[in-house]
Amino acid sequence: MGLRIVIVGVPGVGKSTVVEGAKQAVPGSGVQVFGTAMFEEAQRLKWVKHRDEMRKLPVERQKKLQESAASRISRGKGKVVFIDTHLFIRTPEGFWPGLPLRVIKPMNPTHLVLVEASAKEILARRRSDTTRYRDEVTEEEIDEELDLARSFLSAASLVSGAPMTFIHNKEGESERAAQQVAALVRGAKV
Amino acid sequence: MGLRIVIVGVPGVGKSTVVEGAKQAVPGSGVQVFGTAMFEEAQRLKWVKHRDEMRKLPVERQKKLQESAASRISRGKGKVVFIDTHLFIRTPEGFWPGLPLRVIKPMNPTHLVLVEASAKEILARRRSDTTRYRDEVTEEEIDEELDLARSFLSAASLVSGAPMTFIHNKEGESERAAQQVAALVRGAKV
Amino acid sequence: MGLRIVIVGVPGVGKSTVVEGAKQAVPGSGVQVFGTAMFEEAQRLKWVKHRDEMRKLPVERQKKLQESAASRISRGKGKVVFIDTHLFIRTPEGFWPGLPLRVIKPMNPTHLVLVEASAKEILARRRSDTTRYRDEVTEEEIDEELDLARSFLSAASLVSGAPMTFIHNKEGESERAAQQVAALVRGAKV
Repeated sequence: MGLRIVIVGVPGVGKSTVVEGAKQAVPGSGVQVFGTAMFEEAQRLKWVKHRDEMRKLPVERQKKLQESAASRISRGKGKVVFIDTHLFIRTPEGFWPGLPLRVIKPMNPTHLVLVEASAKEILARRRSDTTRYRDEVTEEEIDEELDLARSFLSAASLVSGAPMTFIHNKEGESERAAQQVAALVRGAKV
Repeated sequence: MGLRIVIVGVPGVGKSTVVEGAKQAVPGSGVQVFGTAMFEEAQRLKWVKHRDEMRKLPVERQKKLQESAASRISRGKGKVVFIDTHLFIRTPEGFWPGLPLRVIKPMNPTHLVLVEASAKEILARRRSDTTRYRDEVTEEEIDEELDLARSFLSAASLVSGAPMTFIHNKEGESERAAQQVAALVRGAKV
Repeated sequence: MGLRIVIVGVPGVGKSTVVEGAKQAVPGSGVQVFGTAMFEEAQRLKWVKHRDEMRKLPVERQKKLQESAASRISRGKGKVVFIDTHLFIRTPEGFWPGLPLRVIKPMNPTHLVLVEASAKEILARRRSDTTRYRDEVTEEEIDEELDLARSFLSAASLVSGAPMTFIHNKEGESERAAQQVAALVRGAKV
């Protein structure tokens, strides 16, 4: 019965740095990038060979992969696992939920963490990395995403029963944000 | 495995016009007004003869009708069905959820669309049609409804796994809003 | 099939006064404080003797108590029961949901009521009762809690299917707030 700490945040919030920092701060902890766990399931099932084949899979197979990756993570033996994933993804079909009920149930997280930053900071990060963030969005749209993230996380907390935390990742202070994630581990009755 | 595109919006947002426009824009598509589907179920079961008898039915029977209408819609053969319904209804007992878990599960939507407009535009529409919108509400209360709609939709997306889209229906530009709904169909991997 | 009216609100909103007032206003009604119902279950199971032992119980046992308290309340014979509980609790591990899916399902509420007040009023109440409200929070953090409360309640309404109401408990007018809760009982088709 280890800890499964889901860490999410809108693109450009600096999530990966916080996840990495949290891992460093908690001896013996591990990181599961959810997209990678899905890819490993897909390889195991011989559905794909290369990662870029993933998004060509039919929706039904993608759903199956989400669910088996979630189950596998919850059966994992790690005492503390940080799960790096998306709360939602902006696509031409709308905002896809990354942690729908059918995924969050088998994943069975013990903590939900939302990494946040100001729309200004996020916009600056997205603009400075145009290979990764291709869509031009406005500060207003980022504020909308930040609001959505809180609504989604509240719903995720309610359906999973896991507590949720908001952590502000201020520019240049990601170490502090990582320490706040690590503090959750120390606060938990393991 | 057709598309079931749920379209909701607070009263006065101009939803019906958008639904009608989307139907015109997508050849072969159909519209299911959820209240009508419930009424048809009630007639089939011989619970009512006339539509105005519906709201006199006991809560338990209304729930039953919601669920069987939802199942029937999800079993429908249409390739693209726009489902015109309510996310919530303001009553003296509070805001009733129109798409609770027990309804959204059997309905199994593929897309959730929230039609939005500014509180000012909505207020103007409600005031110009006092036969339909009898309750006098303030701009502040409409802003509250708009916020609630996003919270409810996020929860609906999370429990159903369907992606959600917000479409702004600007006064005099409902055709544009309808085209945005139609674009979802083209974007979907059917 | 009585009414189970869940009443929640962030600390310092004056919830208990409203619950008490609602009970006075509805002849034959009763109040169930959820924490007390959990404690009674714990005593029945001989897991604790004193209330302060409750928070030392392992998380799994606390979950069990929540679920059996919820079931017991929904099986209760009272015609109208006001359930005084928390929507979420701020802890070092994050905001714990007080009405997660696994609790709200067996509780099966007929109404959800959120007692609200302005951040200013809440802050003043917390500051005047420092034995009860030990954590110093800012007006901004209270506004954050008020927003979260609405998101959580929307999700709770969606998963339970119960209607939700927001009642403003203005300083010195708790009687008016209690009457609004009582009005829900009169509006309900019992």
